Amino acid sequence: MDSNQDYFTSYEDLEIHRLMLEDFNRTETYRKAIHEHKECFKNKIVMDVGCGTGILSVFCAQAGAKKVYAVEASNIANIAKEVVKENNFEEVIEVIQNEVENVVLPNNEKVDIIVSEWMGFYLLHEGMLDSVLVARDKFLKEDGQMFPESASIYVAPCSVPSLYHQWDNFHGVSMFTFAKLLRMERSKKPEVMQIQPEDLLGNEILLACINLKDVQISELDSLEIQHVVGVNKAGKYQGLCLWFDCTFPVFSDSCKPIVLSTSPHSPLTHWKQTIILYPEEREVEESEPLAFKLSMSRDIINNRRYNLQVVILDPDTVDHPIPCSCDMTKCNLIKMIMLQHAAQTIDEKNTTEEILEDEVIDDS
Amino acid sequence: MDSNQDYFTSYEDLEIHRLMLEDFNRTETYRKAIHEHKECFKNKIVMDVGCGTGILSVFCAQAGAKKVYAVEASNIANIAKEVVKENNFEEVIEVIQNEVENVVLPNNEKVDIIVSEWMGFYLLHEGMLDSVLVARDKFLKEDGQMFPESASIYVAPCSVPSLYHQWDNFHGVSMFTFAKLLRMERSKKPEVMQIQPEDLLGNEILLACINLKDVQISELDSLEIQHVVGVNKAGKYQGLCLWFDCTFPVFSDSCKPIVLSTSPHSPLTHWKQTIILYPEEREVEESEPLAFKLSMSRDIINNRRYNLQVVILDPDTVDHPIPCSCDMTKCNLIKMIMLQHAAQTIDEKNTTEEILEDEVIDDS
Repeated sequence: MDSNQDYFTSYEDLEIHRLMLEDFNRTETYRKAIHEHKECFKNKIVMDVGCGTGILSVFCAQAGAKKVYAVEASNIANIAKEVVKENNFEEVIEVIQNEVENVVLPNNEKVDIIVSEWMGFYLLHEGMLDSVLVARDKFLKEDGQMFPESASIYVAPCSVPSLYHQWDNFHGVSMFTFAKLLRMERSKKPEVMQIQPEDLLGNEILLACINLKDVQISELDSLEIQHVVGVNKAGKYQGLCLWFDCTFPVFSDSCKPIVLSTSPHSPLTHWKQTIILYPEEREVEESEPLAFKLSMSRDIINNRRYNLQVVILDPDTVDHPIPCSCDMTKCNLIKMIMLQHAAQTIDEKNTTEEILEDEVIDDS
Repeated sequence: MDSNQDYFTSYEDLEIHRLMLEDFNRTETYRKAIHEHKECFKNKIVMDVGCGTGILSVFCAQAGAKKVYAVEASNIANIAKEVVKENNFEEVIEVIQNEVENVVLPNNEKVDIIVSEWMGFYLLHEGMLDSVLVARDKFLKEDGQMFPESASIYVAPCSVPSLYHQWDNFHGVSMFTFAKLLRMERSKKPEVMQIQPEDLLGNEILLACINLKDVQISELDSLEIQHVVGVNKAGKYQGLCLWFDCTFPVFSDSCKPIVLSTSPHSPLTHWKQTIILYPEEREVEESEPLAFKLSMSRDIINNRRYNLQVVILDPDTVDHPIPCSCDMTKCNLIKMIMLQHAAQTIDEKNTTEEILEDEVIDDS
């Protein structure tokens, strides 16, 4: 082991990797996704894109991979090399310190599986999905697998009580000005924080579902959704909550896919949730429609960053989904008609079933 | 309220103040120390040194102070002004945006009480005690009070399991190299983190007790202790744990002083504890003597910072305290002699008491 710390990495990088490693849900979901599909890894060639400390590469080697190319651009690659050694996988895992864009494999070899933990806050922030997709196009076999294979971003209206509670009577002191400034500042950029399930005011909406096997980088330049959601419990509408899920491949119909979820309903991860806080809160009633447009677009200067924008819309002037969970007359009418139609269908079905039953009875 | 954010303060400063305000133990102990001594504040002139958001000044005004000078050098003084307004204490609290060193009070007025929350990590780190002492010498009346009036720094040998646990078999992977680097990096500077009471391996030693009414700034240039402590439970000796207590004045003999403690035995504060981590751990046995010299000396370039240094000493070559909690022959002998002496004294006392009792009986 080289005694020169710089040879490995900075203190800050070490701490980031510690944080990620100690995120139990993250590390253990990857371990399970790999170890519970040993049949998929047995004798296969794998590439781990952005391998960091190399732990995912070791999981793959443990699962029986014939060869793992562990690609890491930063000096932490030197730690990965040590991790490979101490786990006795020097014959299997080859750490390559380089940007994946510049990597060349011997004999233009292709890989069976690409494993990567590339996700950033709200999935795309400072993430390295672009590099993973470059690796896919350069190295993945036609019928190769991506671990994970898909990712979805969700958004839901929410309360953020931790920023609103207590300040009006804070140990007997009114701290209204301070709280207002704090919220104003915090509304200027997305905030990574934990939201409790009970703080969600409506069902989540799917902002994007990314299939890693065929998505193109250009499709990630801009994501946008315009939506109306009915409030499912009265409360204080203080912002939008974003989170993501990643799904690992399944190899038989009987298996449930393994999902790494960062939803408020799942155990906390280091990604927590991302909040777009409004500068001002608003009291909302149950079934009240909330309309907004959320857009996420790549920053022109730093294309690993995204600009998030929310526009609050007037629910009267935008299209509602069908059916819609809000209580506006139009939506209630549509729901009524749909219910009647459904009831009719059930009636028809029941009648048919009764006839069939009669027939069965007749038969017996 | 000015809409120009800079007029108030930066986002980072707001977050630091939020962290401090939301430290329940900190804010509530100050509130109690002030509100439970209303008799001390009634009609008095107070100075709040480094008032921040002004909450301590409001506590003092609520407690009946005639006048509070709330001194704050940074732009957060503008928030303090708003806090004063919204709590209707504009007649009582005067926010002065200036360094206390440059403040001049009308008619060279002196104050009855100086209130300040000046403490940094391990008490002195980037703290503003110097400014508080300048304020004391400039503004405090001869018989004035300091809130708090004293502060003590403690040190104890400890384990730091959160940095050692799990890494040898981390989700089935050996991460020894990574953990070793992490600890090496972390041992280079004191680490602010929470230590559980059960991770202390010996009793705490008082490094310094600072009486704020008479300490001189120069006395804070260098603090040093050389000590031997007996391990009170076998374990892994991985570092030294530092913390501090602050004590508020008492005004009658019947009162217990109010103490703001950041000990591992007390509820967690934002100061947590400070750990000086050793690069390598060592297994220690119960009653084994641990000897070390700890010094804390002001940085020559940035005199609000301190350099901490620990030298591990050989318990055989240094003086032990009397009595000493270790099990070295010399210390055990001293303890035995002291016990015999104590037993003798008790015997003599008992004999005397018996005689006295006899006399009492004789008298009745």
